[in-house]
Amino acid sequence: MRGLGYVDRMRRLIEAVPNFSEGRDRAVLAEIRSAVEAHARVLDVHADGDHNRSVFTCVGEPEALVEGLAAGVEAAVRRIDLRRHQGVHPRVGAADVMPIVRFRAGDPAPRQAALALGERIGALGVPVLGYAELGAGVRPAHYRAGGLDGLAARLEAGAVAPLFGPARLHPTAGAVLLAVREPLVAFNVNLETADVEVARRIAAAVRESSGGLPGVQALGMLAGGRAQVSMNLIDLAATPLHVLVGEVVQRAAAEGVAVHGSELVGLMPASVAAAAAGARLHLPGMTADRLLEVAVVGAFGE
Amino acid sequence: MRGLGYVDRMRRLIEAVPNFSEGRDRAVLAEIRSAVEAHARVLDVHADGDHNRSVFTCVGEPEALVEGLAAGVEAAVRRIDLRRHQGVHPRVGAADVMPIVRFRAGDPAPRQAALALGERIGALGVPVLGYAELGAGVRPAHYRAGGLDGLAARLEAGAVAPLFGPARLHPTAGAVLLAVREPLVAFNVNLETADVEVARRIAAAVRESSGGLPGVQALGMLAGGRAQVSMNLIDLAATPLHVLVGEVVQRAAAEGVAVHGSELVGLMPASVAAAAAGARLHLPGMTADRLLEVAVVGAFGE
Repeated sequence: MRGLGYVDRMRRLIEAVPNFSEGRDRAVLAEIRSAVEAHARVLDVHADGDHNRSVFTCVGEPEALVEGLAAGVEAAVRRIDLRRHQGVHPRVGAADVMPIVRFRAGDPAPRQAALALGERIGALGVPVLGYAELGAGVRPAHYRAGGLDGLAARLEAGAVAPLFGPARLHPTAGAVLLAVREPLVAFNVNLETADVEVARRIAAAVRESSGGLPGVQALGMLAGGRAQVSMNLIDLAATPLHVLVGEVVQRAAAEGVAVHGSELVGLMPASVAAAAAGARLHLPGMTADRLLEVAVVGAFGE
Repeated sequence: MRGLGYVDRMRRLIEAVPNFSEGRDRAVLAEIRSAVEAHARVLDVHADGDHNRSVFTCVGEPEALVEGLAAGVEAAVRRIDLRRHQGVHPRVGAADVMPIVRFRAGDPAPRQAALALGERIGALGVPVLGYAELGAGVRPAHYRAGGLDGLAARLEAGAVAPLFGPARLHPTAGAVLLAVREPLVAFNVNLETADVEVARRIAAAVRESSGGLPGVQALGMLAGGRAQVSMNLIDLAATPLHVLVGEVVQRAAAEGVAVHGSELVGLMPASVAAAAAGARLHLPGMTADRLLEVAVVGAFGE
């Protein structure tokens, strides 16, 4: 049978997951979304009022995606004033982080798109700081340490150098942290307690940087009146998501605290859901190609 | 953005899940697979030596799928001799069941394809008996009761009338049970015991026909030296798969028996895996459109 040509086109698609520092004002989010959607697709918007932050999941062919993201950043720079921003999630920019996702090892398209986008953002007068593959492996926390004032001083002193744009923060929009990185899952577990210290202890126990699980970043926060363990799983192979969540649940139980529920921020790769389903169903070998829809796409694109 | 045309074509695709009464002889399975693949795609073959049965997951545009299935049945009729068949799964045909799946309510294509296929099978001298939407809602067990001899007598007496083909069994290939039906999940749970009565008690407790869970069919068998609860979940909305499996695990535990592991026979719809993953991850609202690959197909086909 002939291929349907879909997966060839799909293989050109790349994903970006920009985080904007606005999670409350729906008009601002609608304006950013419209700007992106004039060129690319927005698959999901996860707006969080406590974090005062929104995670957009965007997909497009490279040129279209760069256009859409540049338009979205322009709208965010125009509409979001960091000087008035309050929220529990740390940030240094109106368009705070701008990761372009690399799904296939060796694919040059995400890096090319990121650099093209960085140039567009720099031209808006916003410094573009690289992280992950665009910043020798540093993480956003590297730039957030010391807050906006600290970052301003480090830029002035030359201790932090932008990839594009001026070596000073934009007066209202701060900086943009630009990256090429592998897929991750952003996931929050909300606890049946208002004691944020419980979440902080659990976060410290599970995150890699303090001796926890590989590929796990975690912070304890207060969100919606509940303690929240807010996590990024940045190495999907090293720690299955369901193992991480199981560990959080178990540690909460050990403190006598129940789980209220979880939140998936954005989307997850089908492989992550397949593995979690396998754990629930006593099917340890469960993989994404056992999902009918995923198998159909695979079969008709080859 | 323009659509990629994929989902329009994908909407024409239909699925069939023929079960052949051979799970041991790889040469026979390869011949059937080649016959189907000359016209359509085979996404998965689940061959089970204990059941002595194979479940093929096939997809194609309607005309191509009918050609592929007709060719596969022809190969099965030629190569499988039911008179010599042994296996724990009940059956009445070399190509025992031939369900065409209806994913979208009101879609006439599966029925049209099934009737075209039935005519082709009848022309091979094999009686075609309808079940599910092609047989007033009866199930395969309706035809299997009394075994091959019983079915031969009922055909002769006119108590069972074929949709196509002769009113007598094919001498070596028996009959084909043809259906149009909604998606189902075939799933086995293997227990850490050789006592088949444990599996039979659990099967009786969970299946709808004896007062168990809605949409569940279940049998207790011995497979690979272990008691096995072999199930079809035929109403995916009425009983989530993870609830069914949880019930089996709990009933086994109540008998002091551990679960060795599960087997997914064929593929599962992404929605079933998403719900099971949600149960494991404390994400009760988890749906298939939160899987990146599924969301991309949705976004670029519209």
